[in-house]
Formats: sequence, C-alpha cells, structure tokens
Amino acid sequence: MALKINLNADIAEGWGAYDIGNDAALASVIRSANVACGFHGGDATVMHRFVMQAKETGCSIGAHPGFNDLWGFGRRQIKMRTSDLEYRVADQIGALQAMAAYAGLKVTHLKAHGALNNMAAEDEEYALAIGRAIKAVDRSIIYVALAGSKMETAAQKLGLPLAREGFADRQYEDDGNLASRSIPGTVLKDPAKAAEQVIRMVRDGEIVSRHGKAFKVKVDTICVHGDEPTSINVATGVRKRLEAEGIQVVPLTEMSLSS
Amino acid sequence: MALKINLNADIAEGWGAYDIGNDAALASVIRSANVACGFHGGDATVMHRFVMQAKETGCSIGAHPGFNDLWGFGRRQIKMRTSDLEYRVADQIGALQAMAAYAGLKVTHLKAHGALNNMAAEDEEYALAIGRAIKAVDRSIIYVALAGSKMETAAQKLGLPLAREGFADRQYEDDGNLASRSIPGTVLKDPAKAAEQVIRMVRDGEIVSRHGKAFKVKVDTICVHGDEPTSINVATGVRKRLEAEGIQVVPLTEMSLSS
Amino acid sequence: MALKINLNADIAEGWGAYDIGNDAALASVIRSANVACGFHGGDATVMHRFVMQAKETGCSIGAHPGFNDLWGFGRRQIKMRTSDLEYRVADQIGALQAMAAYAGLKVTHLKAHGALNNMAAEDEEYALAIGRAIKAVDRSIIYVALAGSKMETAAQKLGLPLAREGFADRQYEDDGNLASRSIPGTVLKDPAKAAEQVIRMVRDGEIVSRHGKAFKVKVDTICVHGDEPTSINVATGVRKRLEAEGIQVVPLTEMSLSS
Amino acid sequence: MALKINLNADIAEGWGAYDIGNDAALASVIRSANVACGFHGGDATVMHRFVMQAKETGCSIGAHPGFNDLWGFGRRQIKMRTSDLEYRVADQIGALQAMAAYAGLKVTHLKAHGALNNMAAEDEEYALAIGRAIKAVDRSIIYVALAGSKMETAAQKLGLPLAREGFADRQYEDDGNLASRSIPGTVLKDPAKAAEQVIRMVRDGEIVSRHGKAFKVKVDTICVHGDEPTSINVATGVRKRLEAEGIQVVPLTEMSLSS
Repeated sequence: MALKINLNADIAEGWGAYDIGNDAALASVIRSANVACGFHGGDATVMHRFVMQAKETGCSIGAHPGFNDLWGFGRRQIKMRTSDLEYRVADQIGALQAMAAYAGLKVTHLKAHGALNNMAAEDEEYALAIGRAIKAVDRSIIYVALAGSKMETAAQKLGLPLAREGFADRQYEDDGNLASRSIPGTVLKDPAKAAEQVIRMVRDGEIVSRHGKAFKVKVDTICVHGDEPTSINVATGVRKRLEAEGIQVVPLTEMSLSS
Repeated sequence: MALKINLNADIAEGWGAYDIGNDAALASVIRSANVACGFHGGDATVMHRFVMQAKETGCSIGAHPGFNDLWGFGRRQIKMRTSDLEYRVADQIGALQAMAAYAGLKVTHLKAHGALNNMAAEDEEYALAIGRAIKAVDRSIIYVALAGSKMETAAQKLGLPLAREGFADRQYEDDGNLASRSIPGTVLKDPAKAAEQVIRMVRDGEIVSRHGKAFKVKVDTICVHGDEPTSINVATGVRKRLEAEGIQVVPLTEMSLSS
Repeated sequence: MALKINLNADIAEGWGAYDIGNDAALASVIRSANVACGFHGGDATVMHRFVMQAKETGCSIGAHPGFNDLWGFGRRQIKMRTSDLEYRVADQIGALQAMAAYAGLKVTHLKAHGALNNMAAEDEEYALAIGRAIKAVDRSIIYVALAGSKMETAAQKLGLPLAREGFADRQYEDDGNLASRSIPGTVLKDPAKAAEQVIRMVRDGEIVSRHGKAFKVKVDTICVHGDEPTSINVATGVRKRLEAEGIQVVPLTEMSLSS
Repeated sequence: MALKINLNADIAEGWGAYDIGNDAALASVIRSANVACGFHGGDATVMHRFVMQAKETGCSIGAHPGFNDLWGFGRRQIKMRTSDLEYRVADQIGALQAMAAYAGLKVTHLKAHGALNNMAAEDEEYALAIGRAIKAVDRSIIYVALAGSKMETAAQKLGLPLAREGFADRQYEDDGNLASRSIPGTVLKDPAKAAEQVIRMVRDGEIVSRHGKAFKVKVDTICVHGDEPTSINVATGVRKRLEAEGIQVVPLTEMSLSS
C-alpha cells in the first residue's frame, strides 16, 4: 500500500488593497490550505476567492487563525486571557465556514498562525484554548499540531482529530524543536536537502537534527512556504520528489489520523 | 387566536474594553436580538457572553452586520463594491454562528446595522448583496427588512424568509418612510405614544404619519432601542402595553412569515 | 529664466507586513512625495524609512491624509462630519511631522488621498475641513489642489499657500474635469503622449481635452503614479522630457506659489 | 517655601462611538493629563475636545502612548521590535501635538500606557525606545517614569527631563515595586489611606510597604485613577488633603525636575 502524506501551506493572507505571498504558485503544490481568516490577515473577499479556487483544485480547506493583530501580521507574541483567545479562534473558524459555504466546502482542519502557533506549541493553556474553539464549533475539524508539541497534547486531551506536522524547510534541534531561524543555515533553501528531510520523515519516521542526531517522529502533514522565491522552489522540489518516490500527496481529509 | 408580534433590538455592540448601550435592560424586553458581529462593534467575547444569556432567556439570535467601520460604529455611509459588501455580511453571519454554537443556538435572522440598513432600504443593489450573503450561508435565516423598503423587495426576489419591521419610537412620513431624526419630535420619547403607534400597527395594520395620514402596513417585528433612558422606557412601555392588550410577544422564529 | 515645475506622487503606503506600490522607482523620479500617514495606509515604520530616504534625495515631504479606512485603502467614499474629518487630517499631519523630525525635515505640503481627494474636489465643506486642519497645525503647509476644484477655492478662502495640480497620465474633459478612468483610453500609458500633455500644461498653460478642446490652466505640480509598470514608465518619460526641454523639476518648496 | 506636587491621570481614552472612564470628574482633580493618542484608545475628536478643555482648566498636556492594540486597550503585553515601538511612540506624540496646536498648547510630558508602561518599567530596551522617540520629536518633553524603574534609568541615560511617579491608590512591596493588583487589599479604596500614603511620599520622601517597611523615594507626580467610583473618590480625597496640608498641586511644568 502506497505511503501517503499531506502538504500544507499558509495562504490567502492579503487584506483589502494589500497582497502578500505567492498564492497561485503555492496552490498548485499543496493539497491542504491554511486560509487566513481576517484577524492577522485575510479578509472576506480574499477568503471567498480562495475557496472558489480550492473547489477547482481539490485542495482541502483549513482555518488559519492568528492573534487579532493585523499590523503585526500575527507575528507578535501577545499575552491575553485564554477565554478571549478561544472565542477569537472560534470566530475565525466561523468566518471561514461562511465563505466555504459559497463553494459547498467544509472547513476540515485548523492550523494556528505565526506567534500564536509558536506560543501554543509551548503553552498548553493556549493550545487548549485553540482546541476548545474547535470543539465548540465543529469537533470533526482536524487540529494541525507541531509534532511533539503542547498542541499535540491538547488535541489528544480534547479528543480532537490530530495531524502531526513536520517542516520541509526548517532544521531541527536534538530535542525535536525547530531550530531558531536566527541561526544561519537552519532555513533550508536547497530543494534537494529539504526533499531529503521530508522523505526521511515520511518513509522512515525519522528526523535528523542539525547536529546529526536522528530521532523518531510521526508526521501526517508537511508544512511548506511560498513567501520567497527559494521557499516556493523548496515546496515544488519536495512535491516532485515525493511523487517520484511513489508517495501519494493527498488532502488532510484523506490521511488516516488518530484522535 | 391571539395576535402575535416580535420585538427586536440591537445588542452586544461593545468591543474590547469598550462598553456601549444597555444590554441587560433591553434583553428582558425583547424576544429577538440583533447581535453585532465584530465589524461595526461587537467582538467574539461580547458575542459569546450574549449568546449564553440568550440561551437562558429564550431570545432568538440574529446577525447584525454593519460596514467594516469600527470607528464610525457603522453609522457612516460608505460606497463599496457590492460583492465586497456581500462577502463581509457572510463573514459576519459565520462569526456569530460559531459563537452561537457555544450555546447550541442557531442564527435565525439578520438585521443590517446603521448606515448599511439605511442605504440598503433605498438601494436594491445593497439590499440584494445582503440577501445573497444570507442565501449563501443559510437560506433559512430571516431577512429583517424595513416594511416597504428595497430590502423587502430583495428578500422576495431571492426567496428568503422575510420579517417586515416597524419602529416603536420613530414617526413616519406620509409616504411610509421614517421621518428624519433631525426633525424635532419625530423620535417618540413618551412610552404611551409609542405604544399607541405599535398597537395600531399590530392590531389595525396601520401607521399614522406625523401629518395625520393613515396608511396600511404589515409588520412582523417592532424595533425598539435601549441606548438612552427614554428609549429603554419606551421599549418597556411598549412591551407592557402589548401584553396588557393580550398580544403575544414572541421570538421571530414563532411568527408566521412569508418568504 | 527657466521654467520650473514640480512632480509629485503618492508614496510609502505600505502597512505592517504589507507592501504596496513601487516606492524606490518613484522616489528617483519625483521631487515631492505625498507620504501616507497611517490612516488609509502607511505606518510609523514606513513613514520613518521614507523620510530618511527623502533626506538623501532632497525630495520634499507632504502629508497624504486619507479617510480612516485602512481596509478600503482610502478609496471608498465615506460621509462623515466635517469636524471629525478635519481633526483626522490634523492628526495625520502631526504623525508625519513627528517622523519628519527624525530626518530634520519639515512637512511642507499636503495632498489628500483617494476618495477624500475626489470628494474634496467637488465638496467645498470637505475641502475646507482639510484646509482648516492645515491652518491649525501649520499654516505654511502648501495645499495641493486639483486645478479648478473646490480645494483651490478652499485654500484661497483660508489664505493657505496653494499648489494647483495637473495630471500626467489622465485625460481631461472639456470642462476641465478629469475624464473617468472607466472610459477606455483616458488613462495615458504612452510616455510620449503623457509628456506631451505635461509640456503643454507647463509651457503653454493649456490642456487639450480628450475631445480636442484646449483650455487654459495654471499648474504648479504634476501628479505621476507608480503603481503599475506602465505608470512608472510614464512618470520616468515625463521627467526625462521635461529635462530635455530645459524645464527644471524642483521640489514644491521651490515653486513660486500664490496663496 | 511651599511643597509642590503634581497629580496626573490617564484621560480621553474614548474612541469613535465608544466612551470610557470619567474624564469630567478627573479633569477637575488633576493638573496634568495623560492623553491617549489613538493607538490603544483616544482618537482625534476625543483628543481635540480634551485639549480645548485643558486650555480652560490649565491642566498640562502629556502624550499617553500605548501599544497599537485597540482591542486590548493597550493592556496586553506585546513583544515587538524596539525600533517599531519607538516610531509608534513618536507617531502618537506627533498626533497629540497637532491636536494641541488647536488650543495653542504644547505637549509637555509623556507617560506610557498600560502594558507598555509595565513592560518598560522592567525592560530597559523598551524604556529606551520610548525615550528615543521623545528625543527625536521634542527633547523638552518630560518622561514620566515609575520611580526606581528602568524608565527612570532610560530618561537619565538619554538626558531627558524626568518626573518620578508614585501611586496614590496602590500598595508597594518592600523592594519598591508596586504590589500586584491580584493580592487583596493592594488597591487602596479608602481616600484617607491613600491620602496618608501620598502625604508621606511628598512630605517625607518615604513609602511604607504593605509589610510596613519604610523606604526612601523621590516623587514628582502622583498617579490617580478615575475609572471606578472608589478611584475617583480616592483622587478627590488626595487632592483635598494635599491642599489642606498646604502642599501646592501644580502642573508638571511647574515642578522642579532633574534631567
């Protein structure tokens, strides 16, 4: 039986007159899209346009909630009450559900954005707040969680479907955490190296840290980026390599996930 | 068989640290609430709090979308593309649906806010944009329309359930339009006079204009306000008088509406 | 004595993570910059970066206030109280003055943005509101006004220094108004044609309408655009042609302006 | 020679249709106002109204910059680049300067708001960013700093005029820090106790901690609050007691400050 993996990316993060990212190129590479929902980026028109495209391409649709911090594009770490955070995540899911209705689609996963994703990876309270929002709005929504993070724990505690996420273009530390972007070389810009890392994750269930240490990991989805020319090259290279190896690249909804 | 009427009011329009209006007093008077959805006012925390209360009081829940103009509180007239308007209305419905899910409630009606309501009353393109948003997200949502306005026409063209609205505390012109607030005396501050106007609308299907001309009108819901001490007195007075006259005050969902 | 003219353009309209326009190319063409001030676009970081560049290039700095409508990028027509409009314009001037202080520069002109500019061209109340804001904050700031518009009248009534503006890349109607962009051909994309129109304005004080009618006009500054490849080509072509004709292209502060 | 002290409070924090706080009552108690500048609260209309009042009452005007976080009312801790923070503080000063020009007033001090003030008290990088903004825009602006905090250090390093601040209605720890609001009793609601604490600070240069330990402190200005009925009572009580003791309550501009 063929191996399967999902590729996901953040998408539709423009807002009003402002455009950002490289949606067209990314959309042809990934099979699941994390759609910005209007808080850190994205707006109703941008969401609408993307869900109509997703209907054509068969890309599955996920909410990509961020902090209510448009200026900071959701990249600033913000301390807030977890109940306030939870309701804002629910609000963002609802907004995307309404837009998805235009295309007859459902919102089938959720991946937190930027600083919220980073904070929730380490802070179980934030991770649980995200999970409770999912549970309140639609408990069939898949919680995309950095493999090994507090989000994984939160999804399990709440009994939510869980997709463990690995990164194509980021190096890891020995303990399984992502290496900081500020360390030179930790962002992989060579498609071949990124593809190698992904193949190893998918086929062998292993990541090799930047110091050469191998550790076990179970990954259901691979995050790729498209904001820079090198990152879209990496994404494309990973996709091609996966297919060349006979690994099926499928929407998250076609992965066999635990809950 | 007893006459029935609905009382509705705008509610939950606070935002962040900012509070506005008189939700507690209003909530005990009305049977259907127009809940602000975060664009002109309202936020996820405020929405959440109100839907939980509505669950207790049996008040039915409606979306109250406004222009994306928080500073102007949705009261500034804005010209925008109707497709952009439509998607923003859909977005607001979705946000409230997500919050309503916390209470196990559904969003059962929609009433546009402020300048959007005023513009859509006269501009069929705006009125249709609102209606198309309803149709895309949930076509069972009742479109609350100023009786005789372009919104009424739009709801009918789109085949949406329609609730025709009258006002308790505003005088009318001979042609059935609301008299401008800027004309002294057109805002009714005497509960007895407002109640008289409402009773006549509900029992006789008639409004008497400020010049004394009577005209026919069919009204399913009466809008009351709570932003000033006199307006909450008016709302309370109207409710009591209706009940004293044996007229049932029910949620919009219990009215017999045309579509 | 050599003829002189100013070239101006809107600039620095990015916001947070969002970029827009083509600042670098435009900055080398123009001599006066209309700097967005944070309401329709622009933010403190973007303003700061640009004023530091302007210090190097000798470009004079103007405020470019718009409606408080970031989502609409200031392009939506909004009806608001003129006092509210006035104070918001003053606020935007002040914000840019603070950033200009970093470069030891002064804010020497003001040009309204987008829908505000369009509305103020026709509505004297809006035009006066802008002028009163200038007068309150710094009455030496030059009011850039579409030649022949209500803004010109407002500047004169308030005794403010006035720069009459013509357009390089837009055709005119017989009555001196700009022809609507929606009419095919009214946006000039051929640098030679645009340069010809500008030369005629500057040297002969004449504009030839799209129907071939010539009318007199006095123009102190020419607006160019840089948002599209054709528009930056036009801007560059106009600049070169002006210099080839021996016409000096100078900052607004070096023009002899009436008040 | 009579002792002198300043009383300051946060003011003019409404925004658009939203009102907050108790400006009228506070304005009659304080002599220096920290005026919100539009980022965490406050807008051009609200600023304008207040500066016109301040002109009448002789209250001196200060900028009250906060994080660009309107929803959080500037109370959420946000991590951001210090250069971005600095430019936003400068922007807010400039906005208030423009409004102050309407009243012929100058912005003579600055006090940071909410979470920014709390973070800058402990984080010298944030404290310096605020100070650099002051220095760039107008180096005669007084930096109001919690006595003994990193802001005090920053003001001194940058050579800015400094006003050390004490609190009327908050208890202190033995080390001179404010006791957390979450500890019962640390917010003083009894005007007599607050007045006692203030008199001791002003006359004796001493604070007695909540554990009874006295420590030396030099205070130029006392912060009072008006957001709750008890806090406005405290503010009024403190003012009366100071005057009864023959201590002059003056604007910050009349205090003898170090730099």
